[in-house]
Amino acid sequence: MHALVTGGAGFLGSHLVRALLKEGAQVTVWDNLYTGSRKNLNEVAGAIDFHNLDIRITSPENLPVSRFGKFGVIFNLACPASPPHYQKDPIFTWETSVLGMHNILRIADSHGAMVLHASTSEIYGDPLVHPQPESYWGNVNPVGIRSCYDEGKRAAETLAQDYVRFKKADVRLFRIFNTYGEYMYPDDGRVISNFCIAALKDAPVPVYGDGSQTRSFCYASDLIAGILSLQKLPREKYDGPVNLGNPREFTIRELVGVLEKVTGKKLQVKNFPLPEDDPKVRRPVIEKAQRLLNWTPKVDLEEGLQKTLAYFSEEIKNAKSK
Amino acid sequence: MHALVTGGAGFLGSHLVRALLKEGAQVTVWDNLYTGSRKNLNEVAGAIDFHNLDIRITSPENLPVSRFGKFGVIFNLACPASPPHYQKDPIFTWETSVLGMHNILRIADSHGAMVLHASTSEIYGDPLVHPQPESYWGNVNPVGIRSCYDEGKRAAETLAQDYVRFKKADVRLFRIFNTYGEYMYPDDGRVISNFCIAALKDAPVPVYGDGSQTRSFCYASDLIAGILSLQKLPREKYDGPVNLGNPREFTIRELVGVLEKVTGKKLQVKNFPLPEDDPKVRRPVIEKAQRLLNWTPKVDLEEGLQKTLAYFSEEIKNAKSK
Repeated sequence: MHALVTGGAGFLGSHLVRALLKEGAQVTVWDNLYTGSRKNLNEVAGAIDFHNLDIRITSPENLPVSRFGKFGVIFNLACPASPPHYQKDPIFTWETSVLGMHNILRIADSHGAMVLHASTSEIYGDPLVHPQPESYWGNVNPVGIRSCYDEGKRAAETLAQDYVRFKKADVRLFRIFNTYGEYMYPDDGRVISNFCIAALKDAPVPVYGDGSQTRSFCYASDLIAGILSLQKLPREKYDGPVNLGNPREFTIRELVGVLEKVTGKKLQVKNFPLPEDDPKVRRPVIEKAQRLLNWTPKVDLEEGLQKTLAYFSEEIKNAKSK
Repeated sequence: MHALVTGGAGFLGSHLVRALLKEGAQVTVWDNLYTGSRKNLNEVAGAIDFHNLDIRITSPENLPVSRFGKFGVIFNLACPASPPHYQKDPIFTWETSVLGMHNILRIADSHGAMVLHASTSEIYGDPLVHPQPESYWGNVNPVGIRSCYDEGKRAAETLAQDYVRFKKADVRLFRIFNTYGEYMYPDDGRVISNFCIAALKDAPVPVYGDGSQTRSFCYASDLIAGILSLQKLPREKYDGPVNLGNPREFTIRELVGVLEKVTGKKLQVKNFPLPEDDPKVRRPVIEKAQRLLNWTPKVDLEEGLQKTLAYFSEEIKNAKSK
């Protein structure tokens, strides 16, 4: 099996590349290194075919040849995914999600490849239904500061589903809820990386709003297992987007408590105003993934945080020694 | 003033072209004639520069020269807009809305042109808030049979608004609610054309569901006046999408009654099941257009229907005499 992973030098992309190699796949990686980094792939650099490519402008007409030949499956993970990253250049983000999906679907069509596309819980916006099943249509501001990502990802889903419906393409959408783990970006502005870095540096942890907003945190290895199960699902059983995430819900204040337990430190909190359009709750209904994929997250927050803290601790040491 | 009208051979596009010419503008029209027709522009054919062009693939890099030179303003009306038209080839529809907007914004940027973009009440989906102000985020299925249009138009709004926010582009969005009048397509499957054609042919009028769903009908000349007012708005006063439509709301059953009054005929009704994801209510809040543009619709439904019936009656005669 020859797999293309777009965004393969990113946080989740690099986890997926390692998991695919372990399964014996040949792996081509496309990444423009906008947020990703080649060092995330250091240990597997020799095994993969890496191309510094931008999916906004890579189409069937200007496709580079992989040393492994045609793609059997494309995992489309290329897109800045954390608010500070995707809001830095919203037009770039929109183009990556929207033009990128348009290109990937046409490339897959020309290779006869399956597509597994990373959608997101952000398509639910600031949800009015809680927790969120796949059938929920979402509550998204079309012209807000998060729209480049939220609407870009929605439009990508739409095109993908119309490829399934009208071109009989094999495209499978999964909606990723908050995920964390090794290879996260320390600067991605999300709560787990913010908190871990602050705790390791004995700085106050930043809490936006009153900390009563909730998030559900899925450890990276669990998420990757879900993606690989979706790939193995018999085609006729796929019937639209699948939520992948951990249904255990924490308020941000509770997260502080868990982190205190894991680090054994009393953490100081620094409060900031809640950003515009920030979702107040977010928790997946994963009944569909459990039923179709026989998948359920296994790693609890304490265990995942321990591993993530160890990774960030090493990263901070490496940065200091440079 | 040199205006480009994309979709200028369509229903609203051709009305806009005639109105712009009356104002003394030079007008270039791009239309791929997917739903539009050159006969809609017969009476002004000599005055305009017509190009058979597809905005999905027309970019600053392959732009045809207009005989009037650079564009001062671009009215982007190119997109199939009625459910049977936009659902016929959903990938084409999505591409027209999404890739088209991407191209138009870059073309406008390279010409230093203002953009007025036709968005739609469909971005509100099947609304949970009634009537719909511009601040309402909508209730749209991202992967349904209407999504190619609804999500395509939402993604176009997103990109446009980010051009305003980050590139300081002069892009103005208006959301069109149901509009009718001369030059409508007899086969567009919308209630006004369906009803007029049926009444003129003494056939039963098709009612989907129980006819209790509501629509608000704006006559074409009113809508065009709104678009032209938005063009003339001082730039600093524009602050996001503006609803344009008639706030007078009718149930479909009431519409039958009005049509009976206008035609003087007792109409037979034929019932059909309600299509998937069909909005149950749709009515604009137009307070923003009234305040910013001093605009309000003037033509009532009876008067508008009389004119529309006269147009369709002539079209039916012409078709028979061929």
